[in-house]
Amino acid sequence: MVTVAVDGNGADLGPTEVAAGAALAAARGVRVLLFADAREVGQVADGVELIDAPVSIAKAVDPAFAVRSTPEASIVQAAKAVADGRAQALVSGGSTGSALAAGLFNLKRAAGIHRPALALPIPRPNDRPVLILDVGANVSCRPEHLVQFAHMGSAFAQAVLGFDDPRVALLSNGEEPAKGTPELKEVHERLSGDAGVGLKFVGNIEGTQVMEDVADVVVMDGFVGNIALKLIEGVSGRTMVAVKAAAMRSWRAKLGGFLLAPSVQGLREEIDPERTGGAYMLGLRQIGVVAHGRFTRRGFARAIEVAVRGVEEDVIGKTRDALEQAGALRSAPSGNGESPSEHTATVSG
Amino acid sequence: MVTVAVDGNGADLGPTEVAAGAALAAARGVRVLLFADAREVGQVADGVELIDAPVSIAKAVDPAFAVRSTPEASIVQAAKAVADGRAQALVSGGSTGSALAAGLFNLKRAAGIHRPALALPIPRPNDRPVLILDVGANVSCRPEHLVQFAHMGSAFAQAVLGFDDPRVALLSNGEEPAKGTPELKEVHERLSGDAGVGLKFVGNIEGTQVMEDVADVVVMDGFVGNIALKLIEGVSGRTMVAVKAAAMRSWRAKLGGFLLAPSVQGLREEIDPERTGGAYMLGLRQIGVVAHGRFTRRGFARAIEVAVRGVEEDVIGKTRDALEQAGALRSAPSGNGESPSEHTATVSG
Repeated sequence: MVTVAVDGNGADLGPTEVAAGAALAAARGVRVLLFADAREVGQVADGVELIDAPVSIAKAVDPAFAVRSTPEASIVQAAKAVADGRAQALVSGGSTGSALAAGLFNLKRAAGIHRPALALPIPRPNDRPVLILDVGANVSCRPEHLVQFAHMGSAFAQAVLGFDDPRVALLSNGEEPAKGTPELKEVHERLSGDAGVGLKFVGNIEGTQVMEDVADVVVMDGFVGNIALKLIEGVSGRTMVAVKAAAMRSWRAKLGGFLLAPSVQGLREEIDPERTGGAYMLGLRQIGVVAHGRFTRRGFARAIEVAVRGVEEDVIGKTRDALEQAGALRSAPSGNGESPSEHTATVSG
Repeated sequence: MVTVAVDGNGADLGPTEVAAGAALAAARGVRVLLFADAREVGQVADGVELIDAPVSIAKAVDPAFAVRSTPEASIVQAAKAVADGRAQALVSGGSTGSALAAGLFNLKRAAGIHRPALALPIPRPNDRPVLILDVGANVSCRPEHLVQFAHMGSAFAQAVLGFDDPRVALLSNGEEPAKGTPELKEVHERLSGDAGVGLKFVGNIEGTQVMEDVADVVVMDGFVGNIALKLIEGVSGRTMVAVKAAAMRSWRAKLGGFLLAPSVQGLREEIDPERTGGAYMLGLRQIGVVAHGRFTRRGFARAIEVAVRGVEEDVIGKTRDALEQAGALRSAPSGNGESPSEHTATVSG
């Protein structure tokens, strides 16, 4: 049985909602260590062990500093439980920044990985999700980082999302190999050569194509990724609001909106971010999941279940094998100019 | 009376559609020089002068090379008419790349401008549009370029879009000044100081906020801008398609969709890119407009009319004044390591 360490602080609906999500997951056979304020949570379900951890650093301005200076914080305790082997995966409903920092300091980077990345499955209407990465762990990336992200994303999409032979693309300002920043052109060249062995690399795609069925994994740096994911959220949300407003313009439209409501509700559920469980920290020695702070119990349960799937399908081992096969593992065993603190300084909240 | 030089080749619906748009604009008091294949266009309306120019470079792979080596191309002839003073603004319905290259070579950069930029008003439902720039003229930008884009966008939003005291923001991966790439942080610092004099600079915004009413002008480099505009197009289009599909799921939904159709059609028209006329080339000695190739006559007419407004409101002069006031004009009069050909090599199709 897989055990997942869950940070219960930081969720918008409070630790009781996370505990309810943990209970749903536990009912389906997962063991959960829940680190949260015991006075707030109260009783927990069978299969959930509550560890009193009232200190939250979810709102810390400098997550890396907060993680180092607050060993009693719930996210730090949860990450340590994974590092110690008491749990096999980490789930946080708090801030991305502190989850990443706690993951880096405690779970540590997997051997041969330059940088961890945050990967997010974006739900698409009438379609399976598209996995985009990095959505915010690294503001700027070197070509070798993006090459690794391609393999990390592909291995995750296969092992956890169950995609067969996922198509991997680079997000650029045009489809031609000559489009993009100098770094991106180099990544395109490398993935078209030896570093792309084992990958189904389909080249560059444009922004319009992210929501089309042309790629399963789309690679970008964390600056572009953060902007892309928030544009997708914003535009999709705004368009749905506008359709709703259109259904208020006349009596005819109101009746139409009423009749259409169940179908539109079905669409809303299809594109609900809770369905995919959150963003996945890839490139650490264990898998970590950052659920969105505004999730309900259903989203937290899903995050825990996807984390379990990552463990059961050995996504870490499969990623390492893929990188090894492509000769894209980092050669220097450690250090080499980049300390975790330098890295997490670029973490985006 | 303002005269606009229009490249009639390159539109998806052919030069007759551009000619029809020119006729609409001419009927409202604009003079149009239409450069297109005379055999295809045939008769033109009063106020439109047809110059036979059958050669198109709209599909050229290397637009800068095509512009230099094809003086007879319709876009080159149209740009030359503006440079010669036969017209005061340029409108192209062809490719962005060749319009930019022809603009740079013939209209030339305005004094004190580092780089021209492409600015696009994005229609928002139930709201005025938001102007984003650069959407693809410059793949990579230095801080001084982005500082100028802020002023260029603000001056254009005031003079042409009629926005009073437009709020100018930087697109970043977080609202805090410390978020973003090193270049972006420097731009934030400069615009918060002397270089922001005369601007209503509101700091960084995230991707979700582009569609919210928090900024009127959003500044980014051309790589991010191209991705952002295409994500907006793709997500908005895909969501509308999904709503339409939701209206086919049951008899109830079909009836609802039928009743709602006129209102949704109203929404479609509100967010139709034709309403804003296209992308604007800012930073040249005259204004240029790149209409979208798939526009109908209505979009081309709108592009011509907005170009006229740019001339009448002296957007070029107002931009220069704003940059001068903020001390953000380029000091070296010309050259200095950057030739037009180096620049247009980065132009995005």
